[in-house]
Amino acid sequence: MRETAIRRSTLADLGLSAGKQTRLRRLLYQHGPANGTLLLLPYDHGIEHGPIDFLSNPESADPAYVFDLAVAGRFSGVVTHLAVAARYYPEVAGRVPLVVKLNGRTNIPDAEPFSPLTGSVEGAAAVGADAVGYTLYVGSPAQERDIAQLADVRRECERLGLPLIVWSYPRGKPVEEAGGRDSLYAVDYAARLALELGADVIKLNLPQAHKAGAARHPREYEALEGDALEMTRRVVASAGRALVLFSGGSYKDDAAFLGSVEMGMRAGAAGLIAGRNMWQRPRADALGVIDQVHAILARFASDEA
Amino acid sequence: MRETAIRRSTLADLGLSAGKQTRLRRLLYQHGPANGTLLLLPYDHGIEHGPIDFLSNPESADPAYVFDLAVAGRFSGVVTHLAVAARYYPEVAGRVPLVVKLNGRTNIPDAEPFSPLTGSVEGAAAVGADAVGYTLYVGSPAQERDIAQLADVRRECERLGLPLIVWSYPRGKPVEEAGGRDSLYAVDYAARLALELGADVIKLNLPQAHKAGAARHPREYEALEGDALEMTRRVVASAGRALVLFSGGSYKDDAAFLGSVEMGMRAGAAGLIAGRNMWQRPRADALGVIDQVHAILARFASDEA
Amino acid sequence: MRETAIRRSTLADLGLSAGKQTRLRRLLYQHGPANGTLLLLPYDHGIEHGPIDFLSNPESADPAYVFDLAVAGRFSGVVTHLAVAARYYPEVAGRVPLVVKLNGRTNIPDAEPFSPLTGSVEGAAAVGADAVGYTLYVGSPAQERDIAQLADVRRECERLGLPLIVWSYPRGKPVEEAGGRDSLYAVDYAARLALELGADVIKLNLPQAHKAGAARHPREYEALEGDALEMTRRVVASAGRALVLFSGGSYKDDAAFLGSVEMGMRAGAAGLIAGRNMWQRPRADALGVIDQVHAILARFASDEA
Amino acid sequence: MRETAIRRSTLADLGLSAGKQTRLRRLLYQHGPANGTLLLLPYDHGIEHGPIDFLSNPESADPAYVFDLAVAGRFSGVVTHLAVAARYYPEVAGRVPLVVKLNGRTNIPDAEPFSPLTGSVEGAAAVGADAVGYTLYVGSPAQERDIAQLADVRRECERLGLPLIVWSYPRGKPVEEAGGRDSLYAVDYAARLALELGADVIKLNLPQAHKAGAARHPREYEALEGDALEMTRRVVASAGRALVLFSGGSYKDDAAFLGSVEMGMRAGAAGLIAGRNMWQRPRADALGVIDQVHAILARFASDEA
Amino acid sequence: MRETAIRRSTLADLGLSAGKQTRLRRLLYQHGPANGTLLLLPYDHGIEHGPIDFLSNPESADPAYVFDLAVAGRFSGVVTHLAVAARYYPEVAGRVPLVVKLNGRTNIPDAEPFSPLTGSVEGAAAVGADAVGYTLYVGSPAQERDIAQLADVRRECERLGLPLIVWSYPRGKPVEEAGGRDSLYAVDYAARLALELGADVIKLNLPQAHKAGAARHPREYEALEGDALEMTRRVVASAGRALVLFSGGSYKDDAAFLGSVEMGMRAGAAGLIAGRNMWQRPRADALGVIDQVHAILARFASDEA
Repeated sequence: MRETAIRRSTLADLGLSAGKQTRLRRLLYQHGPANGTLLLLPYDHGIEHGPIDFLSNPESADPAYVFDLAVAGRFSGVVTHLAVAARYYPEVAGRVPLVVKLNGRTNIPDAEPFSPLTGSVEGAAAVGADAVGYTLYVGSPAQERDIAQLADVRRECERLGLPLIVWSYPRGKPVEEAGGRDSLYAVDYAARLALELGADVIKLNLPQAHKAGAARHPREYEALEGDALEMTRRVVASAGRALVLFSGGSYKDDAAFLGSVEMGMRAGAAGLIAGRNMWQRPRADALGVIDQVHAILARFASDEA
Repeated sequence: MRETAIRRSTLADLGLSAGKQTRLRRLLYQHGPANGTLLLLPYDHGIEHGPIDFLSNPESADPAYVFDLAVAGRFSGVVTHLAVAARYYPEVAGRVPLVVKLNGRTNIPDAEPFSPLTGSVEGAAAVGADAVGYTLYVGSPAQERDIAQLADVRRECERLGLPLIVWSYPRGKPVEEAGGRDSLYAVDYAARLALELGADVIKLNLPQAHKAGAARHPREYEALEGDALEMTRRVVASAGRALVLFSGGSYKDDAAFLGSVEMGMRAGAAGLIAGRNMWQRPRADALGVIDQVHAILARFASDEA
Repeated sequence: MRETAIRRSTLADLGLSAGKQTRLRRLLYQHGPANGTLLLLPYDHGIEHGPIDFLSNPESADPAYVFDLAVAGRFSGVVTHLAVAARYYPEVAGRVPLVVKLNGRTNIPDAEPFSPLTGSVEGAAAVGADAVGYTLYVGSPAQERDIAQLADVRRECERLGLPLIVWSYPRGKPVEEAGGRDSLYAVDYAARLALELGADVIKLNLPQAHKAGAARHPREYEALEGDALEMTRRVVASAGRALVLFSGGSYKDDAAFLGSVEMGMRAGAAGLIAGRNMWQRPRADALGVIDQVHAILARFASDEA
Repeated sequence: MRETAIRRSTLADLGLSAGKQTRLRRLLYQHGPANGTLLLLPYDHGIEHGPIDFLSNPESADPAYVFDLAVAGRFSGVVTHLAVAARYYPEVAGRVPLVVKLNGRTNIPDAEPFSPLTGSVEGAAAVGADAVGYTLYVGSPAQERDIAQLADVRRECERLGLPLIVWSYPRGKPVEEAGGRDSLYAVDYAARLALELGADVIKLNLPQAHKAGAARHPREYEALEGDALEMTRRVVASAGRALVLFSGGSYKDDAAFLGSVEMGMRAGAAGLIAGRNMWQRPRADALGVIDQVHAILARFASDEA
Repeated sequence: MRETAIRRSTLADLGLSAGKQTRLRRLLYQHGPANGTLLLLPYDHGIEHGPIDFLSNPESADPAYVFDLAVAGRFSGVVTHLAVAARYYPEVAGRVPLVVKLNGRTNIPDAEPFSPLTGSVEGAAAVGADAVGYTLYVGSPAQERDIAQLADVRRECERLGLPLIVWSYPRGKPVEEAGGRDSLYAVDYAARLALELGADVIKLNLPQAHKAGAARHPREYEALEGDALEMTRRVVASAGRALVLFSGGSYKDDAAFLGSVEMGMRAGAAGLIAGRNMWQRPRADALGVIDQVHAILARFASDEA
């Protein structure tokens, strides 16, 4: 069955340069589902959380395991920082596209949310990446440095023809006071800000109702909260002519996970980016759930090729 | 009827380079009212306020809607950040000039007023902009970075021949202590500072009396407060050989809005820049009020061409 | 009558490069008094204080008025920031030399004394300036940035052959604790620091006794306080092989003003820099007092040409 | 006897460029044990601790003594900062490879852990170094600057073909609150972070149980604490395709030292880096213990050549 | 009588590039004592302390006086900041070598010890300097910026062939808590740090016992305190293959001054750097004491030429 999705942005909508278009087309139509949807396998947790994320499935500590899983699971792309890509990607090159995550930080100090660069767009191009990723902390007290750093990255992406995927994450104390990082208000703002700052693809978390008691939550958004699908549609719409990916989040039960994948797609997302749900379980188990994800994505295939 | 305005700065007064002159002439005489006045449609609210500004007229969340409104409403130019321009402007190129806003920030954290660059003058030139915009926070504790950043932008504008429009906004705690962001004292200083720092066109808010109880308000300005037209004339005069645009501010009733447009023009402004008054209402409604604005501007046409 | 001044530094003493010498000679011998003395008209108040300084003589808000006054009053040079020079100077070019002030700030926030660049030496050369000005805040907690920034400016001045005029101003809380910005100790240090950092010409305020009760005032200076002429001679001597200009300060009664001009010259100054005393009064009135200044300067003409 | 070690990363695993490979091969197979293991002699203590570290064996204050010891003890390399290398290394060049340590700081101020650059990769190449060293303070509040600085160093290493050895040290108050700098959790994170940021070789301290009472120690790691060898194997595994060196730490009794060397090797380390254990005792004494270290390393020789 | 000094570093020990060697040889063997010892006349006090240092001998306020004294007193070099050198040095060029001091600051604000650059190595080369000077504040909370800045200066010195003289001064609150700026511990660390960071010549103060009651003074150093000559020998040894100069400090009685000069030389110093002892007294008086210094230095002549 092929579901009639609400109109979502297509490759053509993005108005990309030749280089960006060639590479994004590779992700959308030549790898993974290869039907205009995206299924990305992120693996930057070694920086963001440390090896603690690999404890539940010790094999996942080995990047080679994850690169292999990306091939076996027919992912549209696998996401790592530059140095891990340089060392582990060549063995799977040609079989799964590479996305280089450009910035990150550990979660040890309780600092202003801001991720410094661990690589460069040029470095990503040099290792054969087909896209780059950037984490933007929306609403952070450090936004001054973040916006400036992202503007530089965007310019380099234009120069070298690499699509820019922005992890657009509301973060910081002011965000919590305004309703929380997953509130519809915050995620909606994050979707829009990423569009405004030049994302070609935007990774978002599924929006929720705001945290009770948040003193600075804008009243206008209260009426919009409620139906999950509607909230999700809203943030996809706010991303405008950028593709949206939803996050898989931490490992949860499969029914809930697949349900959220489907809802994201019905809301107009171009796909999903799921790491911990994939490599925090045994390989066979993961491949099983990945098949189910492929089945969902197939129902949202795009005609454009 | 053609009203005899007080002498306002003309294109010739500005002593611009060939490139700047060619482009500013395009805004003044070849698009929009095309009579030497300016009518700009700003659309940087997705960064500054987030999609909350689009809730009252959901269509306005789509940049294409706003670009189309700019064409239909015969605006002199439409203002967006670089990435939105890159993605949405090509469809209206040639039908309405583009102004690229170069810096911005979200309103979530309660930080020192300062807007980092989201693009560059070179980037603006590359997407076909005819001018760039810059937000200067006059009197901000962060003025050190702001003045230095604007000096760089100005130099690039000289190099590439793009007119520089400065949103000159008094902001920050010291400004509030000195009478408030809209006080005649603050707006007057803002007009002058923008001139001193190289603005070709200056966007100001209409000046008002100072906030009661402001401990550091300069006494000299008290005698100058009172008549709205006189206060407005004063700040236009302080902008010297730069063109002045007044802000439309948030959506208000039409009579008040049109009254303030007319007062600004009588005071010597070259035009206005109004966004929320335009796209926060239904399209037909907006086109109606835009016609009335055109009628006002026609009465202040400049002979120079 | 031609008074025998104490020996003051001459153009030859400065050991300047060809470019600097050509330009400084233009200020000293080919414009203004044209007798080896300097009479500069500063007009950077629009940044430093805002238009409030123009209220007492509203015409002075127009840079064209001040440029015209500079010509009519036979000044050696007129001082403005880069953007004002670019827009207003061409009309008087050739009739009065231009000095571009390179840095400034508003007086609204109560920040560490430091003035960021509003232009560049290259920009100044491009608009035809014959010298540049730089404000150094001696003893400021921000001196680290200030000294580094001035070192860059000095190097550019060497490269492009523009004389460097340093406004050497003691400022900041530590200065106040050490006796105050106008204390002999502070002004003496300011004179020397500007020499050490490469000023060709140094603008100083007339030194005074230290503020009573200043806890950190150095005892050694107490014996040196007293006679105004002697204190003034001391700071001129501390400027070594740099020319000294004294400030006119805020508008005061003519006798006091002319008296201070004469004392400065007798103490070895090369001239004065007076703005508010000039343009804060009616034009005819100003030209009258300027004539009297010229008469004083004539008595301190230098033989060197 | 040749012990069957658990599989450890080999030169081939690292996927290095020609330049890096040539140089790292020199350290692994052409100097020192020359059997695929590494024995480095670090001597950056003059910056990190000052000459206080040399008091127990005054001869060690002379870099020439330490360079000579590196030759006599058949070390794989000797590690100093750039300037010490420039002045003392030429006399032993060709007889022991040089590793230039690129960043450091004194231990006097109690500042945020961060080490600024004392040299450059280019400078290291110029003095004939075969590798560079970089201290990364994992979890430091200053990690933003550290990660960015390391990214630059890594890029330069790629450009010039120098292997990058990262001293990966958990440090700072947040680290202490999370269990302490030597806790398994912290060392494990450090191993992974260095891999992610591009280390070819990673220096670690031997992991221990976490500090009692550490409020933010992650519970997941508690079950993993206990057996020293197992903990050590874990952190070696977390370093992935990078070689691991364990630290010798401060001078201790030989049995304990040799025991820890052996345990490190059994856990999969490529070797050790021991300074104070070497030069804080008389030369003959040191050479004796070095012989014993060589004997241990021989049992872990790699077949690869 | 020619005293047999303990072996001190010679020019050959330093392993300098051709350019550095040529210039340092000029200071050691072609000017001043010209016997392998150094006698430098520093004159950067106008920045560091202001003209207050010149009050006791007013002539000393004139740089020309000090340059002349350097010639008359047969100094190995005279030390000033770049701008003073540019203006006053040409008159004595060829008769006394020039050392350009590259960084400095006023003593007015009570800031973290750090001296920004007032010039550049390139600028120093351009005015004919034979060496440059740099003030390093050992143990300062601002050491991060200091070490990075010095690394840049060192690299430039290598590039242009100018010897680098480091004023290595323990400073800051942490230093005081550790025993004080003149404690053996602190001076010893300073000697070593300067060596590690690339000094060719190191200026130190004579070490003393630590301040009573300093809470963080390292116990190991207590046993080393006591005999002044021994303490001095220790810090010279810690400077390794760099030449050491001791400071003359503030003006004191001649016997004490000459005694300290002799002790420094006996401890292995290459010479001394004395300013206030020289120019804070009448010229004839100064030349008398300089003769006595020359007599001491002659007894420590080096055979190397």
